[in-house]
Amino acid sequence: MIKIAIVGGTGYTGVELLRLLAQHPKADVRAITSRKDAGTRIADMFPSLRGRYDLAFCEPAEAKLATCDVVFFATPHGVAMAQARELVGAGVRIIDLAADFRLSDSAVFARWYKMPHACTELLGEAVYGIPEINREAIRKARIVGNPGCYPTAVQLGFLPLLEAGVADTDHLIADCKSGVSGAGRKAELHLTFSEAADNFAAYGVTGHRHAPEIVQGLNRASSKPVKLAFTPHMVPMIRGILATLYAPLSKPDVDLQALYEKRYAGEPFIDVMPKGSSPDTRSVRASNTLRIAVHRPEGTDLAMILAAEDNLVKGAAGQAIQNMNLMFGLPETMGLTALPVVP
Amino acid sequence: MIKIAIVGGTGYTGVELLRLLAQHPKADVRAITSRKDAGTRIADMFPSLRGRYDLAFCEPAEAKLATCDVVFFATPHGVAMAQARELVGAGVRIIDLAADFRLSDSAVFARWYKMPHACTELLGEAVYGIPEINREAIRKARIVGNPGCYPTAVQLGFLPLLEAGVADTDHLIADCKSGVSGAGRKAELHLTFSEAADNFAAYGVTGHRHAPEIVQGLNRASSKPVKLAFTPHMVPMIRGILATLYAPLSKPDVDLQALYEKRYAGEPFIDVMPKGSSPDTRSVRASNTLRIAVHRPEGTDLAMILAAEDNLVKGAAGQAIQNMNLMFGLPETMGLTALPVVP
Amino acid sequence: MIKIAIVGGTGYTGVELLRLLAQHPKADVRAITSRKDAGTRIADMFPSLRGRYDLAFCEPAEAKLATCDVVFFATPHGVAMAQARELVGAGVRIIDLAADFRLSDSAVFARWYKMPHACTELLGEAVYGIPEINREAIRKARIVGNPGCYPTAVQLGFLPLLEAGVADTDHLIADCKSGVSGAGRKAELHLTFSEAADNFAAYGVTGHRHAPEIVQGLNRASSKPVKLAFTPHMVPMIRGILATLYAPLSKPDVDLQALYEKRYAGEPFIDVMPKGSSPDTRSVRASNTLRIAVHRPEGTDLAMILAAEDNLVKGAAGQAIQNMNLMFGLPETMGLTALPVVP
Amino acid sequence: MIKIAIVGGTGYTGVELLRLLAQHPKADVRAITSRKDAGTRIADMFPSLRGRYDLAFCEPAEAKLATCDVVFFATPHGVAMAQARELVGAGVRIIDLAADFRLSDSAVFARWYKMPHACTELLGEAVYGIPEINREAIRKARIVGNPGCYPTAVQLGFLPLLEAGVADTDHLIADCKSGVSGAGRKAELHLTFSEAADNFAAYGVTGHRHAPEIVQGLNRASSKPVKLAFTPHMVPMIRGILATLYAPLSKPDVDLQALYEKRYAGEPFIDVMPKGSSPDTRSVRASNTLRIAVHRPEGTDLAMILAAEDNLVKGAAGQAIQNMNLMFGLPETMGLTALPVVP
Repeated sequence: MIKIAIVGGTGYTGVELLRLLAQHPKADVRAITSRKDAGTRIADMFPSLRGRYDLAFCEPAEAKLATCDVVFFATPHGVAMAQARELVGAGVRIIDLAADFRLSDSAVFARWYKMPHACTELLGEAVYGIPEINREAIRKARIVGNPGCYPTAVQLGFLPLLEAGVADTDHLIADCKSGVSGAGRKAELHLTFSEAADNFAAYGVTGHRHAPEIVQGLNRASSKPVKLAFTPHMVPMIRGILATLYAPLSKPDVDLQALYEKRYAGEPFIDVMPKGSSPDTRSVRASNTLRIAVHRPEGTDLAMILAAEDNLVKGAAGQAIQNMNLMFGLPETMGLTALPVVP
Repeated sequence: MIKIAIVGGTGYTGVELLRLLAQHPKADVRAITSRKDAGTRIADMFPSLRGRYDLAFCEPAEAKLATCDVVFFATPHGVAMAQARELVGAGVRIIDLAADFRLSDSAVFARWYKMPHACTELLGEAVYGIPEINREAIRKARIVGNPGCYPTAVQLGFLPLLEAGVADTDHLIADCKSGVSGAGRKAELHLTFSEAADNFAAYGVTGHRHAPEIVQGLNRASSKPVKLAFTPHMVPMIRGILATLYAPLSKPDVDLQALYEKRYAGEPFIDVMPKGSSPDTRSVRASNTLRIAVHRPEGTDLAMILAAEDNLVKGAAGQAIQNMNLMFGLPETMGLTALPVVP
Repeated sequence: MIKIAIVGGTGYTGVELLRLLAQHPKADVRAITSRKDAGTRIADMFPSLRGRYDLAFCEPAEAKLATCDVVFFATPHGVAMAQARELVGAGVRIIDLAADFRLSDSAVFARWYKMPHACTELLGEAVYGIPEINREAIRKARIVGNPGCYPTAVQLGFLPLLEAGVADTDHLIADCKSGVSGAGRKAELHLTFSEAADNFAAYGVTGHRHAPEIVQGLNRASSKPVKLAFTPHMVPMIRGILATLYAPLSKPDVDLQALYEKRYAGEPFIDVMPKGSSPDTRSVRASNTLRIAVHRPEGTDLAMILAAEDNLVKGAAGQAIQNMNLMFGLPETMGLTALPVVP
Repeated sequence: MIKIAIVGGTGYTGVELLRLLAQHPKADVRAITSRKDAGTRIADMFPSLRGRYDLAFCEPAEAKLATCDVVFFATPHGVAMAQARELVGAGVRIIDLAADFRLSDSAVFARWYKMPHACTELLGEAVYGIPEINREAIRKARIVGNPGCYPTAVQLGFLPLLEAGVADTDHLIADCKSGVSGAGRKAELHLTFSEAADNFAAYGVTGHRHAPEIVQGLNRASSKPVKLAFTPHMVPMIRGILATLYAPLSKPDVDLQALYEKRYAGEPFIDVMPKGSSPDTRSVRASNTLRIAVHRPEGTDLAMILAAEDNLVKGAAGQAIQNMNLMFGLPETMGLTALPVVP
């Protein structure tokens, strides 16, 4: 059994880790911390977990993190990097679901997250946690920077195009739509039902933190630097992301369907759908699958890619467990095979 | 492995059986029938099941039902009773998710379902499939009439009161609220998003088919016949039922909390919540758990019971599998331990 | 033109007053106050009002309330009673949308609202603002206590029964369901979309502030004191209340349909629907109409009444304007004839 | 008073015409037809209109269309063109909310709507009904082809860019999102709440009928022919369209904000929002306003325009009435000034 601690477990990525790890045959959740809710039993905060966890949230100091095999950070940005040195020194592996170890350039991190990076000496070895890109590195990683929800869908959606060098990288567009849980478990007015339901809008239109993370990933896959317009929108649904991606094709006669099917052949969590498909977010609800469909809009030279994922699973906690499985030599799909909940 | 066929698998109870059985370690789904969609692959109709089922829907005649261990009928009312004799004769067990084997009085069936009962000779031995009431009989049953969604919540909610004889059975009220999937997978105008969203109303106010089923069950538990007002409402949500139950107490000093905790002690799928609780439907979403809370409204002599379930799981497919587990000597919870999906 | 000020205009009742008064031919909104948002233009906080209001929110001290004809208090409880004496002294009429002038017994107020009443000398003359009950008194009132959203629907729903003396008043049940806006424009976790959507539950099960207000009103209409179980539930919709009301009939042969039609004949905002109807909340969305249907559940001696209203209009701002119209001798329906928005 | 008939009034554009015309001071709705529902009273089908219409739906033959001043066709495609000749001959004006008179090229119509055009001799004089483009022509028109919902938002969104010649017209992208009512009042499975709620997907990805209509309009405004990728998505909300538009700028130093403000100065129903804004669909809910915001995504040479409208009002019935006002010399805003319903 893998001894696990979760730091900061009261947000949606935290409770999603709890839900998934309760059903993982090798997971032993030893501690879950919350400064604000220390002493509260998990099952009292999350009645959906009644009968499955005896634990209460505890103060970070009481969590004995150093005795665990792996610590998940489901915290605000800035927490993991403050504790990484000590934990890694104690032989503990770290999977950070916040942004501390996603951006390899600490100056970019500082600009977008408004704080200096506190652990630059480990930043270099941290592995960006998309298994379909970095599988081998993840196996050996001591620190995994688990990707953001939008970046997972956008990078995996554009990847085959960029690796094959068939797109005009100057005019990439990622028009993305997310369910409300993507904003976190927060008491904010604009997230209330009365404000967010029966409504649709773009947000972050003057700049979103996931943009530099996406661009970093796309640049790694592309031989030429990319220019990207990234527009997130909020959908009145709880979970799910759909990324609608556009790229002018520099080689218009490429067989996109074959390209994508080949790139993701054998990937257990990537489903390249048949020609003409349109993945809906519910078809991946509560599951770790990312579904992709590839289109060529008539009368244009564009590729249009649709990528759907559950923002809390493949976009957060599920991918984190997929990374854990790799880091500990377990089957990559362990604990992640539950089917989407439809309807 | 249990050889399984599903007759009529394109509705919500059908696809929910598929979802749950795919994750059941002893289930081997051999055939799934649909006259209308014969030839269509399961994964083409339900992309959420892509990669998990190779089967296509087939004509009933091709399903070789007689070679299976158990057949689930997820059909409109009237189908199971037409095939029951032959299948039972062939040693196949039947779990009917429609109403054919729920009502023991064929005249009541005929009045509410507008058709004569076609298999009265087996109606007597059919067992009403609520394990928390009929566990031993279900183990030995050849035919199980799987309960309706409302009847499950209402009966289990009222049961301890009635068994203990502490309620005035002349004035029972079941004010029930269901998600839209309870109406089935049907193209009907009033079920469309534009009509049902951001809206709330009662329906079936002049009589609902679940009323006689509920009354039958309550009468079995009560030493005196009950009079019940049953009002279903449709909630703009996909899944979930909340039953708000009212009963005047004939013995006002009874300890309701203790009564309910004792009645359901050890039940794996019934959660009697602590005093003062209010179960929400999402706390059981996609799971087989029924959560109950018991209240005494101030200034009245009433008991008020809140019972929440997922209408497609404990209210349909999950309970059907719970019954299957009992009928085949498997652990009752097998394949049914997935946690609710929250948020 | 009526000179109007709104105190505390940033909540849902405040913005609904703004929406309705902008379309009222005799309304001249002179000031709207908000301590927190003083200086912010209305149209910047509520883009839906762009182009229709030039005003900015101002400090209460700057609002020159004493120069207005009427002041609406769309504030938290406790604000109106602190300012009532001075304003009434200056000849200003008050319509309080909070609870300060709803309960005629200041001790009951103090118990439920956890503060002493600060203006008991005016409490006696304040009129409870349901025009269908107190029309003549409202015309002459200096202070109107505008009713709560649930109390409007529940009282108007039970009223004909109680006035006619045909119900057993010991066993009244009001099983009520409200959209999320009923909880106000507040940044609270349980009101967020991710928590409240696709979900249904009762709340306030151990006591809700609207209970004493309802009981006060029912007792005024009934020759015998009532006992009431009041259970509010939250529906994943923005607006709307449905009250499902149950009362045992002491005179079972009463013609309920005729009773209700007669009681509300000529009322411009009460629609007694034909026999067998089930009003849905969208049929009154954004309008000042309350629709009622009356039922006799089969096999019981109960009356079951369904009453649907828009909680922000007939349940709050619309009724407040209906009261204003009466107080200033205007046609009662002025500014309130917009049709429900369906779908 | 203008004598009005509505042909085919049981869909969403029909009922929205009824809602708006009931509040229009010069509208006199004389007849509303429906083959299927002839004899049904309007108020029985749409309880939200109870008390405001005495009419029943009638057979087309009984509607005496030739005696009206104007006939609105809220029918499936193909109906208006079959009756246009006769009505125009009788001096009746026609506003067709279907597609019969939108496309000036009858071959394009035939290809996309799978039927030959039945009234080509009047097609030439029919005016495309966007007042902000064709105001003067609409005043004199005998036939107005009222635009589709998407085409209204997309054309008005791109228009200033194209008229000014500052965009690379080879790479226009319209990533559009619509509420479910845009699909009409139809009993189709994919439109049911259980299928469409808590879900998001693109649709019509292999070609949508609004594409040729949009391209026709953009080409009229542009000196060079455009190439457009148009991707519609369905949002789990009832009303509303958001169009997210992208165009590479051929003149990157253009002041987009000034360009748009100038183009739409004085337009009563177009709101160019301040820099940095993001219009949400609820800010125009149930109103005839289109709100636009203009952006320059960082690090790109793109313009990104956000345009929000109510698909049933500015995208259908409201614009039709705006056209009627122009055709009959009434103030353009008459009957269309109701404020958006928020929340």
